[in-house]
Amino acid sequence: MTYQAINLAGKLDLIAEHWHPRVVAEMNDYQFKLVKLHGDFVWHDHPDTDETFIVLEGRLRIEFRDGVVELGPGEMYVVPRGVEHKPCADGEVHALLVEPRGVVNTGDSGGELTAPNDVWI
Amino acid sequence: MTYQAINLAGKLDLIAEHWHPRVVAEMNDYQFKLVKLHGDFVWHDHPDTDETFIVLEGRLRIEFRDGVVELGPGEMYVVPRGVEHKPCADGEVHALLVEPRGVVNTGDSGGELTAPNDVWI
Repeated sequence: MTYQAINLAGKLDLIAEHWHPRVVAEMNDYQFKLVKLHGDFVWHDHPDTDETFIVLEGRLRIEFRDGVVELGPGEMYVVPRGVEHKPCADGEVHALLVEPRGVVNTGDSGGELTAPNDVWI
Repeated sequence: MTYQAINLAGKLDLIAEHWHPRVVAEMNDYQFKLVKLHGDFVWHDHPDTDETFIVLEGRLRIEFRDGVVELGPGEMYVVPRGVEHKPCADGEVHALLVEPRGVVNTGDSGGELTAPNDVWI
């Protein structure tokens, strides 16, 4: 039989909202999530886990309390657990996140940008 | 300070050999590995973990005992733990692997294509 590859661009076409990660695959207890970003997110951290950002399109700036990292297409960064960060996208950004199942996008900060978790496309 | 993004194309330029995964990042106890593939690999499985393939360039065919999946650029697939598979690349393929630290490329099969593990670039 022919198994189906996960086409990231095709999945991204199904996403309309910004800051709402959508799960596209699981590996053990980790999830791969596609997300469209635009504007400034909230300061937050994930006390129990690192979080991986892989940028597919656009330019993403992740601010830290002591600095910044800028990511273009084909670039990735792992934000260490417990490190406060604020993703900022001046233009629209398409990104692939990798993190353990159950991680909430706003960490412990909450607020109106908190997205429903574990939503698959 | 300015932190450094991991540029996947730049890291791939540093890789000459085929079938030798190179670690570019860690997230908790998982690793992101870049690899160039060309030709047929060996049948093998990883009994204790799923394994993620994300194709960046070229076309990768992963054969299973009961079927096949074909991946182009921007496509991914998670091979479930314990499932025998054989990656085949008729042309050169650039891929990003995601799997737990310590996973050996040939699983339990061994052989001359077994690459040194945990080598960073």
